[in-house]
Amino acid sequence: MTHPVSPLAQPFPELPAIAGVTPHVVRAGYKNWGRCDLTYVTFAPGTAVAGVFTKNLCCSSEVEIGRANIAQGSARALVVNAGNSNAFTGYRGREAVEQIMDQVARHVGCAREEVFVSSTGVIGVPLPKDKAREGVEKALVAAPCSWEEAANTIATTDTFAKGATASALIGETTITISAIIKGSGMIAPDMATMLGYLFTDAAVSPAFLQQCLSAANTRTFSCITVDSDTSTSDTVLAFATGQAGNAPLIDENSPGADAFAAAIGDVCRQLAHLVVRDGEGASKFIAVTVSGAVSDESARKVGMAIANSPLVKTAIAGEDANWGRVVMAVGKAGEPADRDTLSIGFGGIWAAKQGLPLADYDEAPVAAHLKGQDVTIQVDLGLGDGAATVWTCDLTHGYISINADYRS
Amino acid sequence: MTHPVSPLAQPFPELPAIAGVTPHVVRAGYKNWGRCDLTYVTFAPGTAVAGVFTKNLCCSSEVEIGRANIAQGSARALVVNAGNSNAFTGYRGREAVEQIMDQVARHVGCAREEVFVSSTGVIGVPLPKDKAREGVEKALVAAPCSWEEAANTIATTDTFAKGATASALIGETTITISAIIKGSGMIAPDMATMLGYLFTDAAVSPAFLQQCLSAANTRTFSCITVDSDTSTSDTVLAFATGQAGNAPLIDENSPGADAFAAAIGDVCRQLAHLVVRDGEGASKFIAVTVSGAVSDESARKVGMAIANSPLVKTAIAGEDANWGRVVMAVGKAGEPADRDTLSIGFGGIWAAKQGLPLADYDEAPVAAHLKGQDVTIQVDLGLGDGAATVWTCDLTHGYISINADYRS
Repeated sequence: MTHPVSPLAQPFPELPAIAGVTPHVVRAGYKNWGRCDLTYVTFAPGTAVAGVFTKNLCCSSEVEIGRANIAQGSARALVVNAGNSNAFTGYRGREAVEQIMDQVARHVGCAREEVFVSSTGVIGVPLPKDKAREGVEKALVAAPCSWEEAANTIATTDTFAKGATASALIGETTITISAIIKGSGMIAPDMATMLGYLFTDAAVSPAFLQQCLSAANTRTFSCITVDSDTSTSDTVLAFATGQAGNAPLIDENSPGADAFAAAIGDVCRQLAHLVVRDGEGASKFIAVTVSGAVSDESARKVGMAIANSPLVKTAIAGEDANWGRVVMAVGKAGEPADRDTLSIGFGGIWAAKQGLPLADYDEAPVAAHLKGQDVTIQVDLGLGDGAATVWTCDLTHGYISINADYRS
Repeated sequence: MTHPVSPLAQPFPELPAIAGVTPHVVRAGYKNWGRCDLTYVTFAPGTAVAGVFTKNLCCSSEVEIGRANIAQGSARALVVNAGNSNAFTGYRGREAVEQIMDQVARHVGCAREEVFVSSTGVIGVPLPKDKAREGVEKALVAAPCSWEEAANTIATTDTFAKGATASALIGETTITISAIIKGSGMIAPDMATMLGYLFTDAAVSPAFLQQCLSAANTRTFSCITVDSDTSTSDTVLAFATGQAGNAPLIDENSPGADAFAAAIGDVCRQLAHLVVRDGEGASKFIAVTVSGAVSDESARKVGMAIANSPLVKTAIAGEDANWGRVVMAVGKAGEPADRDTLSIGFGGIWAAKQGLPLADYDEAPVAAHLKGQDVTIQVDLGLGDGAATVWTCDLTHGYISINADYRS
């Protein structure tokens, strides 16, 4: 089952190689397909790791184990299986993950806690151990591959390969981040978990790497939604090899801390937008900006209520400046909001201010804005200084076709 | 814009007349349509009233005023405007509601707090006072109409008229409830707010009527969802004329209290199901039963997370027993849940038990069940005694067509 390439797709960027990071791809044959489906990335000794994981309580063994092993702070290898999420597979799923960790650790000569595993694909079928073993065996001796090959190999229902890069000047050293991600719906038939990986040559403490990734996550991956559904396997990991040789190690208070954090944030934002741009059935990229909330978190929640509203998303699909539906979504968010201080607009033009439709509201420029591929919805709650931007896509017949018009 | 009648529609039932209740319908012309759009119901002196209202923080003036006036406990008239919700219209909207209350109160000879007003339709356009005044003037002298005419007149995007009835024996007196409701999406282009009205001849205290209605609401209207969106105007009111002559007045501890509460609950359940059956684009009626939760409220929240999941709803539309999507929805609910005690099934057949797919799971009878119009999803969390059932419909191309393929 392949879907047409998203109309919002972007070409795969030029991603720089990262010293100390070597990607490889092979075909384990998790599904009956010709493509590579196992990605194996090795890291030089001394590589720091950080991660953020799904909050879904029914998460996979990969997520449980990865979350526990982030604490020790170092990584030597990453294995990503595509075609089988290994979620909801009990002890048999856990054994398959541990087998991969052991097999790689033996070969690399590291602790098994330094081997990170992700899986994405169908739920409820234990990852076949024999295919995993043979796949890893091939991967351990495979030739290095390009970032684009790795991005294609971690993908499942994605319609285009996704990558992003950023760099920062730390003292006199340039550090570089290259990153890949997969995901289209939050979860999908065969499946569309979001898995993202950042690779950098920066020398950074694991604690600060985690701090940067967690902060970026709050503003980026936690601010996107395709269909409000949350995968059991969502994972974003950051690996820092230290091979750029910047000294001292970047830490919370060191020179360059802000520049490094900004670069991580920038890459995460780019990756998050790419996932929305591959949203199932998406025809428009929607930014929802909320200001005047009682706090940033409150603004984010109001933004997500708008971005998750099927009625707002179908209105945008229909190129209809239906601000009544935005009012409804603000009201149902459950966050502090007052009808009489609420303002709503599209594409920078206010339709209603302080609880009343504008008498001189001209819908023509708004209608023109909504015909484009990039749509903005702005909301001011008129209560405080809290602000946030969240991103989503419209809800179209394409979403229904992808998710309903198939038989598993 | 009219949509084809829902395939899940049910014929309008025989609704008994209720002593002390007289419905009338007229055409106020709120929209450019030929149909009646103003419903006027009068109540005999001594009629008790109770109500439940939307939790949407951006609610209409009708909801604000109605909520405040419920407290005094008595009602003499109800006016329902269709075609204009009068929501998000500031002081001008409020003035229109007060004008209607005054006009009716003068004619009936009652306090204006005893006149209840609802409006449903487009958001952001103040209810035109002149049309309302002329409409009410006609209504005050109109001939009584049938329940079905009233049910059709409160409707907007509904594809069929909705009514329900129940009766109960209180001592030696039979009391009767007749009720009508409108609603299809939670809110819609022209619009689909849920407005429900129960009329009974029972003699009941306003406090107990409210208690019964609130309790029923928790188990019925709060347990349905079409698209997770919440209207700014949702309202359910119950009126009790006392003309059945049962004595003493039904109160919390009087004989017949349980029978009366059961009849109110039964009518509310019937009405709630009818709204789901007219869900925009619905092709299947889905009951989600959750057991083994830590509390009934926790079970309800897990049920609603499943019922609101676009991926679960599209899977049912596709007649796919995709229990992995149910696992995902359970996990994202944020309520206590444990993958290793979780069981999931369809149509009474378990697909997974205690965190593992069943080895002998036979998908054939489940596939047959999913081909029907009435689908059940059962979930056992294996943690406690909490249980709840919620109802929804599937998510189909019809929903997108109704909500996106139009221009306002």
